[in-house]
Amino acid sequence: MEKAMYFLDQKDMPTHWYNILPDLPEPLPPIVHPGTKEPCPMDMPLPPPLFPDAINKQEFSTERYIEIPEEVQAAYRTYRPTVLHRAYRLEKALDTPAKIFYKYEGTSQAGSHKPNTAIAQAYYAKKEGFKRMATETGAGQWGSALAMGCVFFDLECKVYMVRVSYNQKPYRRILMETWGAKVVPSPSQDTDVGRGLLTEDPQHPGSLGIAISEACEDAFANDDTKYSIGSVANHVLLHQTIIGEETRKQMEMADAYPDIIVGCIGGGSNFAGQFLPWIRDKISGKKPDMRIICVEPQAAPSLTKGPYTWDFGDIAGLAPILKMYTLGHTFIPSPIHAGGLRYHGMAPIICHLYKLGLVEARAEYQIPVFEAGVKFARTEGIITAPEPCHDLKVAIDEALKCKESGESKTILIAHSGHGHFDLGAYDEYLSGKMQDYEYPEEKVKEALASLPKV
Amino acid sequence: MEKAMYFLDQKDMPTHWYNILPDLPEPLPPIVHPGTKEPCPMDMPLPPPLFPDAINKQEFSTERYIEIPEEVQAAYRTYRPTVLHRAYRLEKALDTPAKIFYKYEGTSQAGSHKPNTAIAQAYYAKKEGFKRMATETGAGQWGSALAMGCVFFDLECKVYMVRVSYNQKPYRRILMETWGAKVVPSPSQDTDVGRGLLTEDPQHPGSLGIAISEACEDAFANDDTKYSIGSVANHVLLHQTIIGEETRKQMEMADAYPDIIVGCIGGGSNFAGQFLPWIRDKISGKKPDMRIICVEPQAAPSLTKGPYTWDFGDIAGLAPILKMYTLGHTFIPSPIHAGGLRYHGMAPIICHLYKLGLVEARAEYQIPVFEAGVKFARTEGIITAPEPCHDLKVAIDEALKCKESGESKTILIAHSGHGHFDLGAYDEYLSGKMQDYEYPEEKVKEALASLPKV
Repeated sequence: MEKAMYFLDQKDMPTHWYNILPDLPEPLPPIVHPGTKEPCPMDMPLPPPLFPDAINKQEFSTERYIEIPEEVQAAYRTYRPTVLHRAYRLEKALDTPAKIFYKYEGTSQAGSHKPNTAIAQAYYAKKEGFKRMATETGAGQWGSALAMGCVFFDLECKVYMVRVSYNQKPYRRILMETWGAKVVPSPSQDTDVGRGLLTEDPQHPGSLGIAISEACEDAFANDDTKYSIGSVANHVLLHQTIIGEETRKQMEMADAYPDIIVGCIGGGSNFAGQFLPWIRDKISGKKPDMRIICVEPQAAPSLTKGPYTWDFGDIAGLAPILKMYTLGHTFIPSPIHAGGLRYHGMAPIICHLYKLGLVEARAEYQIPVFEAGVKFARTEGIITAPEPCHDLKVAIDEALKCKESGESKTILIAHSGHGHFDLGAYDEYLSGKMQDYEYPEEKVKEALASLPKV
Repeated sequence: MEKAMYFLDQKDMPTHWYNILPDLPEPLPPIVHPGTKEPCPMDMPLPPPLFPDAINKQEFSTERYIEIPEEVQAAYRTYRPTVLHRAYRLEKALDTPAKIFYKYEGTSQAGSHKPNTAIAQAYYAKKEGFKRMATETGAGQWGSALAMGCVFFDLECKVYMVRVSYNQKPYRRILMETWGAKVVPSPSQDTDVGRGLLTEDPQHPGSLGIAISEACEDAFANDDTKYSIGSVANHVLLHQTIIGEETRKQMEMADAYPDIIVGCIGGGSNFAGQFLPWIRDKISGKKPDMRIICVEPQAAPSLTKGPYTWDFGDIAGLAPILKMYTLGHTFIPSPIHAGGLRYHGMAPIICHLYKLGLVEARAEYQIPVFEAGVKFARTEGIITAPEPCHDLKVAIDEALKCKESGESKTILIAHSGHGHFDLGAYDEYLSGKMQDYEYPEEKVKEALASLPKV
């Protein structure tokens, strides 16, 4: 009997997040204040008063391991440790000597890895005496995770949801409301920014940039409220390292060690959460030939096509300025189904590691990506969200290379979640109606013209 | 640190299904042939040639433990053992001394317990040389599980989906198609029954009875095809006992034993799958005071309101005649959201145990049921399907009784799956638009007038 699932007992669940910062071969560039255009101090790197103090301290902490508070661990224990699977059926279908593993975050109540940081952020806000959290959401993946995080710590949650998604994708809105969040279409009547835009156009479709502005204004205007983000920032990647820390223990149970780790990157938090606990072995020279492959969409290929420079973290130019591979903060990518990968930039930690040559990057088109998703569904059974379908495409390619070369490599997939709310995309693919999008060179050139001067 | 999730290692996954038949204090009544109205022979109780031989033999097997074929176990290992959870957050919110556990089947790829039998049925069909399976589905829960079962054993799958659901609920149709099934709206052009009805009305909305007729006709007409059902029959309940067999081991890990087991019943297969492995302790006198509470909807309360008599298993009167508590096979229940509980009868095994006084039954209205579902979402995080929300209602009631009496009872919930495709129902509840349905006494009286003469 060969095990296809590796469970980690809760008594063995990691008690610490892993912080890569002290192990980086070169230090990470600082964050730059969006107003002053000056570097923020390392001990208070995120412009106050948006975030809880504890989060601010975590952003550039020099501690290698940061203890997960017991209350956060208890909340994690409603769905963690998540399972490490061995994809025997996929291996057999590909007739490959490669060993394929996938760590699956789709069994969290919100269906993705996002609660790992939502819970932590809600905990710190509660601990510091705040009563509410405010955030933005596009299709609703992040907003629903934060809604769940807030309900666990008895906080109110206000979500500004891009109006076009609010109208077209009611399911994630209902999910947030079921967890007790207050969800409004953005632009909304609840902020100055929103009211101004609605005066111009009462049916304004909104954008993620506008929704960020509204959520920030909400947090600035209400003393009892903190703002929360779902990816990109160092502290978010830190919270996600629970994924990789668990996987290390589970791979040991499976008597395996990854030669290749594959994951998709939008803001980068899921994949970094998986690979950061491994990359220390590459940095330290223990496993120098380990390959870490970041997969991005052809429609928004920041690592593979963008310059490494200073840019705003958000489309509106309100969030901190970060050193990253970017397509320009005003760049609006084509409407691919993997909404979570439509970010113009990338987590600074991932950019830094890419610059240092420690991780690779690859860009993929969405039609072959969905082809891989259907292959996975018809072997392993799981319906994968459009974002991690990108991982599957590259993992399958690498497994087929092993078939050619006869090598039995071990491939680890960072599978971030299920696609139960993305079946419309599968329908488009299966009925042959799916469209693909080239890299829009001209639009990127325009967007890069408006980079901030730092 | 108190564990909230109990994982069972795959090497400890049960290798046998538990068959209650030899342990019943009185034998189960036979199945009656729908054509001849005569009892079927016990060694071939399901009218051939609908089912594979192995399934026919399992229907009235006298073996206490039936080995799960290794190929079925291997397929189970893509999602099993499922987790047993301790609902600490719900307990705390209720301020109850009761210990609440729930065994959760929602992490299967299809989102419910249904694959446990779909995989087994597909395996036996394949093993006996068949190439295709045909079945009916209403909202798509069962059809999607069989689609997945078939893809695991490289069988074609044809699903006749009630047209009104096919049009209104595209998501489960897409799910089936993603797994490679061919799905047609029923009535369809693919059978005599379907063509006849479409001649009368080209937009005929269909019904489950019609879809059953089409699937049976398909299996009769094609030598390479077997028919498959998703609940009610003894062999289906047998396959589901993997749930309870796992739970027994997990409750032992938690050093707990249930005083009360709660589950919803539509055809009854999920709940029987949980409680049959426990009820032997009640029958044998080891745990005589264990309470097993079957929860049904007020809109279709077969156990609590129906007579115990002979009736057709299906609405069309084509399926075998069974001794059961029934509201009459022509009875059409009100459109409650828990579509899986809208069955007119009940699994004969459950009916027999109810008649013998070994299980209790309770009927609930859907509004308080959804209130319990939201309570669960806001404590444990999980979005529960409308069917198992019925379990939650009764489990919460029992936990509150414990609060009054000060008793620390152990309550085990048979949680059959997630509600990711049922968010419309939550929206209705949260917005105050949900309607409730009384027991329709007059309609049942009419339906009972057309019982078959046996």
